[in-house]
Amino acid sequence: MATDADASSPQVFSAESYFATQPPPPTLESDTARVREFVQRQVHAGSKVVLVTSGGTTVPLELNVVRFLDNFSAGTRGATSAEYFLKAGYAVIFMHRQFSLQPFSRHYSHSTHPFLDFLDIEDASSAEIAVRPGERPQLLRVLAAYKEVQRAGKLLTLTFVTVNDYLWLLRAVSQEMGVLGRSGLYYLAAAVSDFFLPRQKMSEHKIQSGKGSLHIEMDQVPKILKPLVAEWTREGFIVSFKLETDERLLVPKARQALARYGHQVVVGNDLHRRKFEVVFVSPKPGSASRDEVDRDYEESWLRIDLEKDPQKEIEDDIVGELLQRHERWIQSGVTR
Amino acid sequence: MATDADASSPQVFSAESYFATQPPPPTLESDTARVREFVQRQVHAGSKVVLVTSGGTTVPLELNVVRFLDNFSAGTRGATSAEYFLKAGYAVIFMHRQFSLQPFSRHYSHSTHPFLDFLDIEDASSAEIAVRPGERPQLLRVLAAYKEVQRAGKLLTLTFVTVNDYLWLLRAVSQEMGVLGRSGLYYLAAAVSDFFLPRQKMSEHKIQSGKGSLHIEMDQVPKILKPLVAEWTREGFIVSFKLETDERLLVPKARQALARYGHQVVVGNDLHRRKFEVVFVSPKPGSASRDEVDRDYEESWLRIDLEKDPQKEIEDDIVGELLQRHERWIQSGVTR
Repeated sequence: MATDADASSPQVFSAESYFATQPPPPTLESDTARVREFVQRQVHAGSKVVLVTSGGTTVPLELNVVRFLDNFSAGTRGATSAEYFLKAGYAVIFMHRQFSLQPFSRHYSHSTHPFLDFLDIEDASSAEIAVRPGERPQLLRVLAAYKEVQRAGKLLTLTFVTVNDYLWLLRAVSQEMGVLGRSGLYYLAAAVSDFFLPRQKMSEHKIQSGKGSLHIEMDQVPKILKPLVAEWTREGFIVSFKLETDERLLVPKARQALARYGHQVVVGNDLHRRKFEVVFVSPKPGSASRDEVDRDYEESWLRIDLEKDPQKEIEDDIVGELLQRHERWIQSGVTR
Repeated sequence: MATDADASSPQVFSAESYFATQPPPPTLESDTARVREFVQRQVHAGSKVVLVTSGGTTVPLELNVVRFLDNFSAGTRGATSAEYFLKAGYAVIFMHRQFSLQPFSRHYSHSTHPFLDFLDIEDASSAEIAVRPGERPQLLRVLAAYKEVQRAGKLLTLTFVTVNDYLWLLRAVSQEMGVLGRSGLYYLAAAVSDFFLPRQKMSEHKIQSGKGSLHIEMDQVPKILKPLVAEWTREGFIVSFKLETDERLLVPKARQALARYGHQVVVGNDLHRRKFEVVFVSPKPGSASRDEVDRDYEESWLRIDLEKDPQKEIEDDIVGELLQRHERWIQSGVTR
């Protein structure tokens, strides 16, 4: 039987109280140092920099993690978009959920046999390993692009697992990106949990199942976009994502987010249509200042025809549209 | 604020009531046909067959799945063990969580760049792709073993995601394996959720987060080992796994499971020691019949020294021990 006896009532965490009470991940310092070095290098090179977040976050239910709450996301949107940003000359900080898809390797991971079915043993005596002929042209393209990005030092990869890792890392990265001013783009495609279990309420050991039912009570994750926009990165161009399963909620939810946080664009996508349709929601030109409370909003729908062009990736056009908007944002560079 | 108003009280599902009320996965029929064909082929060949289950199960919280509860498991135990069973001549039905590790490819997946960092473009003009010299010897070994298993048709791979997929698939596979009698081995290494949300209680759309806290009430998953042992596969040799984070619970929990379900072995492992230590718990010889209620149990600990031999995989010895026990089980073949 479930019991409410030991469940303390839900708390509302501000970003400030969150970071004051929840412990940072052990790799935060070294990750921050890597970001600092990377950003410095891009500033010197005059590169624009985009932070791409990707994949779902987990909410551990136990300190010795066995069970956790997760959000559905293979990381396709983020990994694919990162490739198009790189192609457009941006430096990319790719902050993704461990084991979710990554740029370039995404073409080969998450398939049934990602690797071995591609290879043949060519000659039993000399034992040469060869890539199957049919696979060579695409692999060569992907491999060449990957090696070039590696050589140029244009891709920095960071990893998170829990929503706590994500929040700490996002704060640190955006603070480091502050020096980029308007050249910094934030492409927040990760599927972040709305709820979490504060460390102080977590069970130390695996929750035992003898009780017939499992009862979980979680607190709301602080609205991290608020300090991101208002404090950590006042000049950056910030794009957030909304995923809904009820299409009617897309635009109202996107407007609500813009009104609440004052950032530049919400990309809305419906779970079942996200491969071929998204909507850009943004403040109307002329009401573009972040600080206005009563802004007007406009929507612009992007649709591709996958029957006509099955190879087309909608991220190509999403990134294309955002590059233009980011450029206008840079040009209009009025510092508040 | 959380509210209990709409939460109906937890139900206890027997396996029978579970399968009567929860819908089968859409691929169940085609998967069952593949298993039947595979088992028939192994019976003809006189092969022993092991079912290896591997990876964690999810519990969707919404019908249009965005959020779900998950169990921690990369699938290392199952994928590694499957390789050793194949090496010992067993045919393997590898039933695993989508994207969890698989035999052979496990050596290369789940690394930062599973594939691309292995390859070089050898000559810019002829554009030959080559495996880096340092990686060739191991890759050649893995690839040769993989190709041989493919050629011999000794590996059948099945995929699940949710705990519902898992339960339906486990029932179907074990029923198909019934014809194997004592030659069938069940190596149930998957990390299966103890709780689930019945279809009838699921929210159709993404749970909205406006309410300040998330309140989840789940029902207990039926104890599937009970009908597996007693009905579906009365002659099979059944090994289940217990993972705990509190080591003191390992042996008592293992004994409890054996007493409750009447199967042959529980392999107990502590979350933090599982790479170098496990315990086999089983009924004492002489009390080996499944039907005895008051059996005596014995434990036997297996430990390996990873400092002395860092390449050693404990699954090599776990499988080695179980092969002997399975052989004795076949030899002692008293049909009830």
